[in-house]
Amino acid sequence: MYVGRFVVVSPEVGAYRVSSRSFPNRQAVKRDGTVTVEPTPDAPETDNPYISYNGVRVTEHGAVVGNGSHVDPIAEKLELGYPARDAIAEPLLSLDFEKDDYDTPRVAGVVGVDAADPTTNADGPGAVIGTVRRDALLVEEVTEPTLVATYEENSPTAFDLGATDASEVAREVYDHEYEHAVCSAGVAGSAGEFDVAVYNGE
Amino acid sequence: MYVGRFVVVSPEVGAYRVSSRSFPNRQAVKRDGTVTVEPTPDAPETDNPYISYNGVRVTEHGAVVGNGSHVDPIAEKLELGYPARDAIAEPLLSLDFEKDDYDTPRVAGVVGVDAADPTTNADGPGAVIGTVRRDALLVEEVTEPTLVATYEENSPTAFDLGATDASEVAREVYDHEYEHAVCSAGVAGSAGEFDVAVYNGE
Amino acid sequence: MYVGRFVVVSPEVGAYRVSSRSFPNRQAVKRDGTVTVEPTPDAPETDNPYISYNGVRVTEHGAVVGNGSHVDPIAEKLELGYPARDAIAEPLLSLDFEKDDYDTPRVAGVVGVDAADPTTNADGPGAVIGTVRRDALLVEEVTEPTLVATYEENSPTAFDLGATDASEVAREVYDHEYEHAVCSAGVAGSAGEFDVAVYNGE
Amino acid sequence: MYVGRFVVVSPEVGAYRVSSRSFPNRQAVKRDGTVTVEPTPDAPETDNPYISYNGVRVTEHGAVVGNGSHVDPIAEKLELGYPARDAIAEPLLSLDFEKDDYDTPRVAGVVGVDAADPTTNADGPGAVIGTVRRDALLVEEVTEPTLVATYEENSPTAFDLGATDASEVAREVYDHEYEHAVCSAGVAGSAGEFDVAVYNGE
Repeated sequence: MYVGRFVVVSPEVGAYRVSSRSFPNRQAVKRDGTVTVEPTPDAPETDNPYISYNGVRVTEHGAVVGNGSHVDPIAEKLELGYPARDAIAEPLLSLDFEKDDYDTPRVAGVVGVDAADPTTNADGPGAVIGTVRRDALLVEEVTEPTLVATYEENSPTAFDLGATDASEVAREVYDHEYEHAVCSAGVAGSAGEFDVAVYNGE
Repeated sequence: MYVGRFVVVSPEVGAYRVSSRSFPNRQAVKRDGTVTVEPTPDAPETDNPYISYNGVRVTEHGAVVGNGSHVDPIAEKLELGYPARDAIAEPLLSLDFEKDDYDTPRVAGVVGVDAADPTTNADGPGAVIGTVRRDALLVEEVTEPTLVATYEENSPTAFDLGATDASEVAREVYDHEYEHAVCSAGVAGSAGEFDVAVYNGE
Repeated sequence: MYVGRFVVVSPEVGAYRVSSRSFPNRQAVKRDGTVTVEPTPDAPETDNPYISYNGVRVTEHGAVVGNGSHVDPIAEKLELGYPARDAIAEPLLSLDFEKDDYDTPRVAGVVGVDAADPTTNADGPGAVIGTVRRDALLVEEVTEPTLVATYEENSPTAFDLGATDASEVAREVYDHEYEHAVCSAGVAGSAGEFDVAVYNGE
Repeated sequence: MYVGRFVVVSPEVGAYRVSSRSFPNRQAVKRDGTVTVEPTPDAPETDNPYISYNGVRVTEHGAVVGNGSHVDPIAEKLELGYPARDAIAEPLLSLDFEKDDYDTPRVAGVVGVDAADPTTNADGPGAVIGTVRRDALLVEEVTEPTLVATYEENSPTAFDLGATDASEVAREVYDHEYEHAVCSAGVAGSAGEFDVAVYNGE
């Protein structure tokens, strides 16, 4: 099954995977607490505005994963003090689905949210997942590994994730049977202490 | 089962029911295209700010149902041109859950949305439902009768609704086995032509 | 000159005054850190939805003043962690101007904002003022006493305020030459320590 | 004086000018109703995320000008039916100021707004201007040529603009005495009929 790009989040582990039929020549590049998805050096030129973006950003209040330019304002609103629910909801509502041929949804999550965050019920680290589609805006706390993808699985749904280490998480989502894996990133930890890893195949 | 206040929406029928253990002395009063929930003349005085509000408002772009003061800005944003998804999402995010002892969610829906509304896929009238909880903001188009309640059933879920006439709809949700019915309202039609009815028991 | 209802804010002092030609039978009632504007016992009945509301609410992150039901969500968003600018902007955008015969603007301010709030430049307590009109949404930090009113002075403008004590502030804005004073409230202090006072004439 | 990047809007004319000390090797490229600001072929490589973006986008409900990635969601919200005030305010609040060394504001405007837009008072085409700064969010209708810039003139202020033709407008703002002009764009017309032009010096 092809579900397009997807995020998986649970309270202390998160992942983002690029799956693509149209633009496979891309890679995940880690720089400090940020993972950038960008064309490989040999990729054909394109002016598609949805190709390059930060897919992971670590903040003091949680680590953000997502499939587009909304990752930055979500991270920035967390840093300004917004609770995770609102930090996801406001940028998703505003930036909306991608204006491509498929009305591709935006998907995002925050992992390792402070226990003090009023939008999570967890005593320890919490997780929030979200998506904006042409016909929906869904943002909710999750306590078990949960996936939301751009196609097919486009509402948050339980996901079987075994790995707990950032590198292994990146590898596990890359190797998942969902089709057309391009590159992936994993994050593990809680606010203040996150490991980040990328995997670009072999 | 006690699920508290709830809305039910489908493309051409909507309902709102007040269920209450704490403030049963209330009634639904219809004035033109608006239904106001308010204390009965014999109700004890209260300064609870969540007791009285418009539970239904008809606009040119759809009929709004909901359990609190958010019904007004949702109706007003529809009138300003917002698509139904955004007209629900923005006020829910901003007004947020009720700051009472139960963090009671706000619930809302829009019925009979214009086919031209870009946030519904329907060829004919569409429907959008939403809720804001401490741990979630959920807004989505629905094509079959769907309920969202303040407690227990606090995510949108399929609901068996038979009636298609406004009066019958009000009566059907009032008589539902969910406990502590107080009053109800029903709406039927599509943008530009809505019937509204209330039911306050016998 | 009649400017209608207005707020005045500066970093450690804030005020709200009800001026009204249509509904003069109202009073400001103080309950803990909240001031409610409500009809006097002898007021004629009305179903105008804009008559009664909290005009002042004290929070841990600043004291909110305003002319309507937006004061509550502004206070609640401050409590959830929003910076003052966003706590004012989001509810004003969502609740919008009053849908009365005059498209009356909503006005609001936050006084005694934490120095840590990223939307104020002040080393000590800060202040933010805002209004939403049919044709504008204006939210900005201020460092000197600044007024915004529903009519005439409907953009933030410098205001000559001498008093620094909550009671004196309430009295000073009540006695101002702007016409049709009904009641007023004053607040003084900074986050964590506010005095609140009301004045209802003699 | 160096005011950085700026927009000028009036009901039927709009302009955007890039002024830059750090990244002068940029050009404005017109493609149908869109103007993209992008590095010239000889520009040094950079990973600054604020260098390339659409500075103008024409929609059926008005032409958008602005200094960054917010131009796209503003245009898209206009196309979804939002009034111009809200189409500017929501993306600005969400995307916020640029997270660079100067907390550079985002500036934007919409020109040739439908007379039916409820957030403009004009009988004919209207114009709305806006900016988000660390300490403010300002969005308002204007009826005469008005400028807002990233620095110094960072609140909307009257601006002397003579040209009424798109090409002349682009040239006039490029030639303005504000320092460090890099490239510019002009737009003229009203909803449904806009001319767009760019100027990149000689």
